[in-house]
Amino acid sequence: MHETIFDEVLAGTIPCYRIYEDEWVLAFLDINPLSPGHTLVIPKERAAYLHELSEESSAAIGRTLPMLCRAVMEATGIEDYNVLQNNGHAAHQAVFHVHFHIIPRLEDRGLDLEWSPGELSPEDAEDLLAALHRSLGTDD
Amino acid sequence: MHETIFDEVLAGTIPCYRIYEDEWVLAFLDINPLSPGHTLVIPKERAAYLHELSEESSAAIGRTLPMLCRAVMEATGIEDYNVLQNNGHAAHQAVFHVHFHIIPRLEDRGLDLEWSPGELSPEDAEDLLAALHRSLGTDD
Repeated sequence: MHETIFDEVLAGTIPCYRIYEDEWVLAFLDINPLSPGHTLVIPKERAAYLHELSEESSAAIGRTLPMLCRAVMEATGIEDYNVLQNNGHAAHQAVFHVHFHIIPRLEDRGLDLEWSPGELSPEDAEDLLAALHRSLGTDD
Repeated sequence: MHETIFDEVLAGTIPCYRIYEDEWVLAFLDINPLSPGHTLVIPKERAAYLHELSEESSAAIGRTLPMLCRAVMEATGIEDYNVLQNNGHAAHQAVFHVHFHIIPRLEDRGLDLEWSPGELSPEDAEDLLAALHRSLGTDD
């Protein structure tokens, strides 16, 4: 994958408002926030998409999220929030280095979601499940 | 926290289209999908919100996500996707047991996001950082 601005943030050649750092993970304030306290959590490992990230890095991000969510809630006083991770242009990814957003939700600020669900037919479900189990190597 | 429908899914008293299961995590098809392959990943631990989930369970979810994203991509042939986890009514949470959505993104199906970012002033950033570091116990 290509270098991104997050490589420079990780290298310290571009400054960031650093919230937390460990061996695997860096968390910092998004400078274009959707709401106060909007936080980015990134792996130090360079990977463009979540499906390309190692299990170790992805587990390390998972491990830090509850603590970071509590800190964002305490620091902002906001109780509701979304955690979002986008992959690909169509999914609204802008920087091609994996990043998890923690986005506090206020009535008029934060992540604005449209939710238009369909219904899963048993036939589609069985076809999908068969393909998923083939992919995971868990088909019989 | 209260019992939710996901306790019954975990107990097997309500059936699900099971994709993957291990000691910590269950993944299954969302029966009200935003797009084909819409998947839910939940901890076996009962917690309403991500900030209440143990580090162990949250790390376990993190560890499974890259593999599950790859399987969803392969099974659907869709390359772009969002990973979303909602906390609280205002953030669009409907079932109060932690769940991560994997939502394939097609032009006209999937997660419809509005992105209206602001700008973070240095003053606001410093105030937020101080509060975050107090909360994390990393202030000097």
